[in-house]
Amino acid sequence: MKEMWSSDLLNMKPYVPGEQPKDRRYIKLNTNENPYPPSPKAIEAVVAAANADLRLYPDGECGDLVAAISEFTGLPKSRIFAGNGSDEVLALAFRAFFAAGAKARTPDVGYSFYPVYAELFGTSAEYVPVNDDYSVPVEAFIDTPGGVVIANPNAPTAVALPLADIERIVAGNPGRLVLVDEAYVDFGAETAAGLIEKYDNLLVVRTTSKAHSLAGIRAGWAMGCENLIAALNTVKNCVNSYTVDRIAQAGAAAALRDREYFETTRRRVIATRERAAAALRELGFEMTDSKANFIFVRHPDFPAKDLFKALRERGILVRYWDLPRVNDRLRISIGTDADMDALVSEFADITEKGR
Amino acid sequence: MKEMWSSDLLNMKPYVPGEQPKDRRYIKLNTNENPYPPSPKAIEAVVAAANADLRLYPDGECGDLVAAISEFTGLPKSRIFAGNGSDEVLALAFRAFFAAGAKARTPDVGYSFYPVYAELFGTSAEYVPVNDDYSVPVEAFIDTPGGVVIANPNAPTAVALPLADIERIVAGNPGRLVLVDEAYVDFGAETAAGLIEKYDNLLVVRTTSKAHSLAGIRAGWAMGCENLIAALNTVKNCVNSYTVDRIAQAGAAAALRDREYFETTRRRVIATRERAAAALRELGFEMTDSKANFIFVRHPDFPAKDLFKALRERGILVRYWDLPRVNDRLRISIGTDADMDALVSEFADITEKGR
Repeated sequence: MKEMWSSDLLNMKPYVPGEQPKDRRYIKLNTNENPYPPSPKAIEAVVAAANADLRLYPDGECGDLVAAISEFTGLPKSRIFAGNGSDEVLALAFRAFFAAGAKARTPDVGYSFYPVYAELFGTSAEYVPVNDDYSVPVEAFIDTPGGVVIANPNAPTAVALPLADIERIVAGNPGRLVLVDEAYVDFGAETAAGLIEKYDNLLVVRTTSKAHSLAGIRAGWAMGCENLIAALNTVKNCVNSYTVDRIAQAGAAAALRDREYFETTRRRVIATRERAAAALRELGFEMTDSKANFIFVRHPDFPAKDLFKALRERGILVRYWDLPRVNDRLRISIGTDADMDALVSEFADITEKGR
Repeated sequence: MKEMWSSDLLNMKPYVPGEQPKDRRYIKLNTNENPYPPSPKAIEAVVAAANADLRLYPDGECGDLVAAISEFTGLPKSRIFAGNGSDEVLALAFRAFFAAGAKARTPDVGYSFYPVYAELFGTSAEYVPVNDDYSVPVEAFIDTPGGVVIANPNAPTAVALPLADIERIVAGNPGRLVLVDEAYVDFGAETAAGLIEKYDNLLVVRTTSKAHSLAGIRAGWAMGCENLIAALNTVKNCVNSYTVDRIAQAGAAAALRDREYFETTRRRVIATRERAAAALRELGFEMTDSKANFIFVRHPDFPAKDLFKALRERGILVRYWDLPRVNDRLRISIGTDADMDALVSEFADITEKGR
């Protein structure tokens, strides 16, 4: 088997997303989706775009979506690149900046897609161990040989670096790219977008999949100086001239423009996170200080793997990795208050019975 | 400038799609879009998918879309891979099969994205000159060292190979991939999909952008043996777990299931092509025997570049390449009968005045 595969593909290990089971209904706390629907204005925009113009290619430059991102972020349109979800934007960025030489330095506990991108594009990443509390050792990211990739807040740890530390890293790597993946920034961390006018080596990547509840339509973007945006456009136009379809462009633009809905939704998720975290601490769980739409928890008396299995049997999906440094933990996405009440109740029962 | 770019990117020449001007309204005969809207059932399916579930990631395996492709093609679901437009599928296929060693052999006149993919993934293609009538010299594609990539019908020539010749090429390259890009097959050529059960080295790529009038939602697919489909899934899952959004999956599946609309639409395009071709021959134009939704024409008395410019001034966009072997030709997409009447009328005026 694997006849005709490109040789370097034979042992490649793809990213494995959280399961999307079809066998029964679960409370899905395993893929960091937003529990609330997207803005009604986004739905309206999708419906409005469902017309005869679907026969025509989309705007390859995503003009109106980029305009909406510009309004949302306050950055000029020339510093924005839109793509088919932030995963695609990250993949293009790895190809643009971390192939053929430069090796990205990244925390050893982080988004598990980064090593996959690095390998796919013929290089590999350099891993720096995070501290025992999962905080990122900032000094190790100053003066790197090839640049930095870092998620802020980090995944799956939910721990955020203060903006001042991000700026130290950016300032400490002149002429080398610092990519900050801000997929979860809207749930309590500080964006580095404001540094883009000051530093030409900073690329910030974001998504509408989380805080804008649009995981289903795939729209993400990058922000950086014109030189970095030009590199992303070059790679994109070597892969697919039109990666974001007409309907995704319309829906994402409308969601970004509904600022009030966005603010309300993200605040609800944050409030539920704090409430659920307090209830789980009551049950003896320990956790990092989450600035994301998920929490990263352990229980001193129960192996995470057992808790994961017990929850699954009871109809609740969370994420568990059987990997060093994180295999005593569960990553739990923040659902509705009702979802989290169900989780707390099942955990109470499991930990009670298990004693 | 270009600081921080991966070194191999510095001189890369991206694919340049046909222009999508915003300055005025044109009759757009330059990007091979379908002049007719998509099936009303596709529009309905898009509207139905515009709901609260957009907060959830799409099905990464495109289950229902793959089922619809299976119904449309008669192939089992296990032999189908769906992606974000056939351009993405082609890019993934180049990465999967033509990186790290194997060089694809391809006609020197062909879809100009192929050399871009090859270069992006660190290899290059081998070019075989087409014959003076733009037909593909079949013998040169037997017993190739690294495999074959061929569009059938070919672009921008519109010339198709008979299925028997495609089978000779497939049979003549055991253990090496033969990729047949059938973006335009529905307008008069024969699909090679029926050969997939017989040959494990054949990958056929198709799209809903042309005959299904869905260029705006980006859905394409590949068909091949399970081993080839597995390679595509591996590369896809190294780039982006969810490349086809919920709405594109729903719209494309509905379009594929509306067989009657598809048959009517493609027959209308074919009828208009034959009518326009006859009228242009009356004006002295020469052209290849088109099996696509475009024609590839020249006029013995007028440089193609001049005709291109004159048409543009008169509000009609067609495609012209200032490249060897094709710079005496125009590629003209088939529009509505009214679009083509306008083209013929302007050409009559231009050629009359030019004498």
